[in-house]
Amino acid sequence: MSYQLTPIEELKKRVDNLQKKITELELDGVLLTNNVEIFYYSGSMQNSMMYIPAAGEPVLFVKKSVERAMKETLFSVEPMLSVKDLPQLIDNRGLTYRKVGIELDVLPYNQFQRIQRAFNGTDFSDISQVTRLQRSIKSNFEIEALRQSAEVVNEAILEVPKILKKGMKEFEFQAELERFVRLRGHLGYIRTRGYNMELVLGMVASGISAAVPTSFDGPAGGQGISPAMPQGAGWNEIKENEPILIDIAAAVNGYIVDQTRMAVIGDLDQELEHAYQTSLEIIKEIETSAKPGTTWSEHFETAKRLAKEAGLEEHFMGYKQNKVKFVGHGVGLELDELPILAKGLDRPLEAGMVIAIEPKFTFPNKGVIGIENTYVVTETGLELITIAPQEIIRLPK
Amino acid sequence: MSYQLTPIEELKKRVDNLQKKITELELDGVLLTNNVEIFYYSGSMQNSMMYIPAAGEPVLFVKKSVERAMKETLFSVEPMLSVKDLPQLIDNRGLTYRKVGIELDVLPYNQFQRIQRAFNGTDFSDISQVTRLQRSIKSNFEIEALRQSAEVVNEAILEVPKILKKGMKEFEFQAELERFVRLRGHLGYIRTRGYNMELVLGMVASGISAAVPTSFDGPAGGQGISPAMPQGAGWNEIKENEPILIDIAAAVNGYIVDQTRMAVIGDLDQELEHAYQTSLEIIKEIETSAKPGTTWSEHFETAKRLAKEAGLEEHFMGYKQNKVKFVGHGVGLELDELPILAKGLDRPLEAGMVIAIEPKFTFPNKGVIGIENTYVVTETGLELITIAPQEIIRLPK
Repeated sequence: MSYQLTPIEELKKRVDNLQKKITELELDGVLLTNNVEIFYYSGSMQNSMMYIPAAGEPVLFVKKSVERAMKETLFSVEPMLSVKDLPQLIDNRGLTYRKVGIELDVLPYNQFQRIQRAFNGTDFSDISQVTRLQRSIKSNFEIEALRQSAEVVNEAILEVPKILKKGMKEFEFQAELERFVRLRGHLGYIRTRGYNMELVLGMVASGISAAVPTSFDGPAGGQGISPAMPQGAGWNEIKENEPILIDIAAAVNGYIVDQTRMAVIGDLDQELEHAYQTSLEIIKEIETSAKPGTTWSEHFETAKRLAKEAGLEEHFMGYKQNKVKFVGHGVGLELDELPILAKGLDRPLEAGMVIAIEPKFTFPNKGVIGIENTYVVTETGLELITIAPQEIIRLPK
Repeated sequence: MSYQLTPIEELKKRVDNLQKKITELELDGVLLTNNVEIFYYSGSMQNSMMYIPAAGEPVLFVKKSVERAMKETLFSVEPMLSVKDLPQLIDNRGLTYRKVGIELDVLPYNQFQRIQRAFNGTDFSDISQVTRLQRSIKSNFEIEALRQSAEVVNEAILEVPKILKKGMKEFEFQAELERFVRLRGHLGYIRTRGYNMELVLGMVASGISAAVPTSFDGPAGGQGISPAMPQGAGWNEIKENEPILIDIAAAVNGYIVDQTRMAVIGDLDQELEHAYQTSLEIIKEIETSAKPGTTWSEHFETAKRLAKEAGLEEHFMGYKQNKVKFVGHGVGLELDELPILAKGLDRPLEAGMVIAIEPKFTFPNKGVIGIENTYVVTETGLELITIAPQEIIRLPK
C-alpha cells in the first residue's frame, strides 16, 4: 500500500462519460463542489470547485492547496481566491456557463446562493442523480480498490477470536477493530451522502443492545456511547449466549465495502439460529437470481417473501415500526450509493454496480442477527468480494 | 462514564435563550434540521426535525427512533412520516409558522426546497448565525463536558512516550492514539460545520510531511494516507531529530477540545526551538490579554505581531500562500465554532466562550511546530482546560 493516485486514463474515462451526459442534457457544463465527486472526476480532493464543460478540458479551481492539486490531477489547475471570481476564470478559458448542472442534493443553501450571485443569470439545475448513477457503475480500477477494502474487513473478522472477550464493553471491542483496520489503510470513517448521516466504522453491538433502534437508515441498531452518538457500540458488556453483531465497513483509498458477520461466546437459541439460516438462504437466493436487467426492487421483494415464509416477517430489517425499507445498497466512495434494493425502485441492475446486501433480523429481547456481503454485478451475475467465512464465529464460554 | 443525558434544566435554558431571540427577530419559530443543533436544544440526536416556537413548548417531530427520542428529551415527541406532514402537525399543536428561521448554512438545497414546498407560503430566513452565536457561550454543564474531553487528550499525551517509536509510520502512531482516546469515550470523529470539512482525530505528522499543505482550514498539514484523505497522518516514517506534531481533538459526549503538543526523538535545531519558544510566548501573551470585551481580531493581530518580531512572519500559521487567517477558533459540539480569532472580526469575546488557540509555524523543509490549548473565557480572563504538560516530549534516540 502507499499514497495511490487515480490513473490518468481512469479520470479521462470518467470525465468523458459525464461529458456525454452533459451534452445529452444540453447543458454548458457541470460545476462540482462536493469533495467526493471532485475526487472522483479529478483525482484530487483539495479545497476546490471543478468545472467540466460539455466538451474540452475540465478545470480545477483551487483554494487550497494548489500545489497538491497540481500533483494529483491531470487536468488544468487554477488558483481561486473566491467563488466571486469563478465566472471570470471560466470565461478566461473560453468556456460558457449559461446552463450548468450542480449537486443540489448536498450543496448547502447558503453556498448555492453565493454561487448564484456570482454567476448572475446562469440557469442551474440538479445534476446529482446523473453523477450518482454514473458513479454506481464501477471500473476495474475501482473494483480492485474495493477488493483491497474487502481484504481488510476479511482480516478483521479473522482477528475476532483474538480480540473478543466476554465482559468487554461493545465500544472497547469496536476500538480494537478500528485500530486493526486503521493499521491496514482504512481512512478513519465512512463517508455518506445523506444529510446528518454519520458512520465511524459500522455497527458493533451485542444482545439486546444491538436491537435498540437508531436514527441511522440501516437495519442494525445499537445504543451508542452517548446521546451525541446514539448508534452502534455502547457501554453494554458482551455476554455469553447472545448474538454479537459485527457490521463493519472499511474504506481503503476511499472505496468502501460493507460486511456483517456474527459471533457468539457459547451458543445461540433455536430462533436465532433459524433466523441466521434464513439470512443465508435469502442472500444465496439473491446471489443466484441477481444479474443485469433484474430490477432493484425485485430482490427486496424476494428477500421479504423468504423472510415471511420463514415466519420472520415482523423481524425482517428492523422490528415493526423501526424497519428500513431496503435489503441492499450501493457502495463506493460513499456508503449510501446507488442502486438501492428497495420496494418500488424498478430500475435495472447493471454490470459494474457494487452492492452490499444485508438481510438481517431484529429481536427486541435478543438482538440482531444476519449477514452482509458486498458483491460486484457482472455480466452473468453477482461476484462475492467480501470473502470472510460466513459461519457464525463460535467461541467457547 | 456512561450514557449521559443532558439535564432537563439545561435544555430549558437553551430553548429559553433561543425563544428570546425568536421574539426579538419577530419570527413565529425556528425549524431545526441539523443533527448537532437538534441535539443541543432537545438532548436527542434522532432522525427528526425540531420546531421551537417564539413561546410555548418545542416539539420534536421524529422519523426514527420515536422511542429513543422520547427517552432522551423532555419536550413533546411526535412521529413524522414525511416532511410533507409537518405543517399540519405544527398546526395541530396550535402553533403558527408564517415567519420561520432555519439553518441555511448547512441545509442542502434540495432538502430546503422540499421543506418550502411543504410549507407553502412560509417566509424562511437563515437562523444559523443566531444559533451558532448562542452555542458559542457554554454553560457550566458544557464546560464540565469539555473538561472530560480535555482529560482524555491529556492522558493521550502522557501515553506518547509508551506509544511513539522511531520508524513507525505516521498513521500507525495515529491508530494507537485513536484507540487510546476511543477507549476513553471519544465518539470516533470530530464534527465540523463547514461543507466538505472532515476530521477523524486531528493532524498527526512528522518532519517535512507535516508541512505538506492540505485542503483543511488549519495551520497544520500532512500528506495523508490517500488522495482520498489528503491530510494529517500518512505513510511517512517517523525519524530522529524532526518535530512530531500531535494535534489531536477528542469528543466525549459530543464536546470537542483541541490540543497540540510536540514530540521529538533526539533533538530539534535552533530555528525550531526558537519557533516553539515563540509559540509559547504568543499563547502566554493571549492568555494574559484576552478577556470579555476584547475583540476576536486583536488576539490574531497580537499573535501576528509577535511572530513578526521573532522573525517568523513568513512561517506563521502556514507557509506563504498556504497560510490560514486565524489563530484560534471556538470549540464545542463542532470543531469550527465561534468565536474565530481572525483579522477583521471585531466582535467581543464573552464569558463562557471556549476557544482553541493554536500559534504554529510551518517550515517546508523541516516541519510544523507550535502549541494549541483550549481555554474557557471567564469574567476575568482565560482559564486553561487542556492541562497536558507544555514542554516538548523529548525521547532518547
